[in-house]
Amino acid sequence: MASVDVGVALLGYGTVGSSVSRMLAESGEEIERATGHRLRVVRALVRDVEKERAFPAEDGVLTTDFASVRDDESVDVVAEVMGGLEPAGGYVRELLRAGKPVVSANKQLVAREGAELFAAASDAGVQLRFEASVCAAIPVIKVLRESLVATNVHRILGIVNGTTNFILTEMERGDSYDAALARAQERGYAEADPTDDVDGLDAAAKMSILATVAFGSRVTPDEVETRGIRELAPAHVSAAAELGMAVRLVGIATLAGEEVDVRVQPAFVERSHPLAAVDGAFNAVMLQGDAIREITLEGPGAGGLETASAVVADLVNVVGTAGTGFLENDACWRELGRLDPDAWRSPFYVHLDVADRPGVLAHAASRLAAHEVSVAQLVQRLETEAGSDGGNAAVARPGGGGRASLDVVLHEAPLGRVRGALAEIAAFPEVLDRPFVAPVIREQRV
Amino acid sequence: MASVDVGVALLGYGTVGSSVSRMLAESGEEIERATGHRLRVVRALVRDVEKERAFPAEDGVLTTDFASVRDDESVDVVAEVMGGLEPAGGYVRELLRAGKPVVSANKQLVAREGAELFAAASDAGVQLRFEASVCAAIPVIKVLRESLVATNVHRILGIVNGTTNFILTEMERGDSYDAALARAQERGYAEADPTDDVDGLDAAAKMSILATVAFGSRVTPDEVETRGIRELAPAHVSAAAELGMAVRLVGIATLAGEEVDVRVQPAFVERSHPLAAVDGAFNAVMLQGDAIREITLEGPGAGGLETASAVVADLVNVVGTAGTGFLENDACWRELGRLDPDAWRSPFYVHLDVADRPGVLAHAASRLAAHEVSVAQLVQRLETEAGSDGGNAAVARPGGGGRASLDVVLHEAPLGRVRGALAEIAAFPEVLDRPFVAPVIREQRV
Repeated sequence: MASVDVGVALLGYGTVGSSVSRMLAESGEEIERATGHRLRVVRALVRDVEKERAFPAEDGVLTTDFASVRDDESVDVVAEVMGGLEPAGGYVRELLRAGKPVVSANKQLVAREGAELFAAASDAGVQLRFEASVCAAIPVIKVLRESLVATNVHRILGIVNGTTNFILTEMERGDSYDAALARAQERGYAEADPTDDVDGLDAAAKMSILATVAFGSRVTPDEVETRGIRELAPAHVSAAAELGMAVRLVGIATLAGEEVDVRVQPAFVERSHPLAAVDGAFNAVMLQGDAIREITLEGPGAGGLETASAVVADLVNVVGTAGTGFLENDACWRELGRLDPDAWRSPFYVHLDVADRPGVLAHAASRLAAHEVSVAQLVQRLETEAGSDGGNAAVARPGGGGRASLDVVLHEAPLGRVRGALAEIAAFPEVLDRPFVAPVIREQRV
Repeated sequence: MASVDVGVALLGYGTVGSSVSRMLAESGEEIERATGHRLRVVRALVRDVEKERAFPAEDGVLTTDFASVRDDESVDVVAEVMGGLEPAGGYVRELLRAGKPVVSANKQLVAREGAELFAAASDAGVQLRFEASVCAAIPVIKVLRESLVATNVHRILGIVNGTTNFILTEMERGDSYDAALARAQERGYAEADPTDDVDGLDAAAKMSILATVAFGSRVTPDEVETRGIRELAPAHVSAAAELGMAVRLVGIATLAGEEVDVRVQPAFVERSHPLAAVDGAFNAVMLQGDAIREITLEGPGAGGLETASAVVADLVNVVGTAGTGFLENDACWRELGRLDPDAWRSPFYVHLDVADRPGVLAHAASRLAAHEVSVAQLVQRLETEAGSDGGNAAVARPGGGGRASLDVVLHEAPLGRVRGALAEIAAFPEVLDRPFVAPVIREQRV
């Protein structure tokens, strides 16, 4: 096999960039065996060439000048590992137009500007790959695109954010949300400003990419109905445990007929379901399709080396396949409508804080029945300990007695009917707080 | 995209073959979008053209004459879904030599004759793909070869036989081995002659393929130290439950330095470990490597449609990539030695049936200590119920009292030392049965 040098440029040389550089250097032989080529980092765009790096670049590689990367004829392929929409997006567009294949680890860029970027790549006849943009080393994009071509994947369940999964795992052990978040920050799993993670925005971007690839129709993060985990109280987590479930931040993408629904929210997952076993900062994606029943991929969804592993895999695939590869760059080939959110079906869990007075249960049950929502399981208990409602201790209403909580599991129903019933229930004076509702994910080997 | 017809021939038109045929017909548009080609079954080799088929072939497609398949110029790629070493192996060799790419679902053929077949494929400059030969729809071959090129996978843990996993799951619910096997046969999970599954031969073939691909050095099924599940008694399964573990038939492939070890045996898996959650006829493969920590793929490891899904994915990849693809057909590039089995390290579980006499425990403990094997956990109990030893009720030795069992969990140690200690323990007259030993698989997020 004749060894030909392939020049690689990096946009960004931080944690991921220096891991890519190290991996290309240390796994050069493996890559040459797979592709017939030796990949070398010849250019890396940085803000400060003097900064110390975990794996130093060779002399003359680092530059602050984008044009010198774009115009360098020794650059055969570029890895974008700088993050953010701009200037990364502009750089990637220019590189593609200049005929350079790009692999990107940038979920927000791929999720928000995919339509334009994939078109630019196809116009130039080069590849744009993005495995590292979703769940780091877990090769879910490759599996969806290359292994499940003929299997009609119609549902994706994903734990795609390690930070929130770590926080929820800690809360299961008794921590409050605030204490668990602080621990995630100590360990480096959460940023000082954790908004993107805890509000579900990171998960929404990843789920929009997965839905786009799986269903062949563009879904952007803004179309993903997104609820984070800030509102979660220890009472919800302990109620889940008592019901034999675990609370997880789950992304659910559904293809129902010719309509798409993508959502991210806390969900109650039955303990026997594979997603309930995903602990700590790990990620898992379950793909359900006609021929495959379900395939689950689990692994580390973040981290410098883990992300670099996916970047290197994409580089190897770009180098190893000719032109645009055998797949069109853009997985989209149709424009599907959005499912009316009220029509989205699931079993649900509902938590109600109520005044301990006769008739409350009957009222709630009658409202659910009026909306044709049926109850699978119900636990009513008196609140005896302070704080057992998660610190939202409401003042007992005048004339009221004690305080009770109702944990209700509902059979599968359209979300709209459940919301309709809960709106009426919430208007009842004995209901002390806004009802909490979350989908239930049952184990069903389809 | 210009649509070009690609002629597909099938060797075999049984459950898998007719599923492939159906999938190519029903997913024609998806495949054309991915590859630019329409795949059509133009030939199918069968024993009896008159037999009724789940998805009938078009007129003139079925034939009993292999030469008419090999020599048909409209055949661009062949799927071997007939199974068995011969005549399948001879056919595949002839087809490759005739310049036809082949995808095979035949684990025994790939595992035993891979060296010769891959050489024939490379000589002819065509692809030989084999995703369907291991774990059906779970794309573990593709992930190992194309996504983990630079990650140095050094350990594989696999539940790769659905039949035995179903039997073990049933035994956890209280069934005897015989009753669980009978249920597996009723459900169609086990053959009338279950030898290949329950003796671990099927798992050994799959593990040898996975080890070959992951480590780049040929491992054949005969080199896999293989123990099946026939010897498992309900006492072992209930001891596992009491220790917070589950019994699973686990394949373990280890790259230790420059040496390889591959084994298949019942293992005690901690309940919190992802493999313990694999229930029923599902399969799971965990890949541990330097950069990825661990990636687990889980899904249905058998079934006509599931296997067909992997065959179709391979066909799509053959059609979509030129020549031999960007990867060499043969994943082997070196010849590694075999690890001395005695040097293979693991924590272990040991079960001893002993006479309930003073000194037995001290004796066992002293033999273990003499071999530098240390005890992590020990439970001694009097056997009170008949049959609690799994039906192997030994006659109490003359002069003996009651009967007791010792369940011991050992810290990690080389297998040779554990075997040495157990040989001495077994020679003690108070030990009533051959000791049972199994590796313990602990949860450790590496």
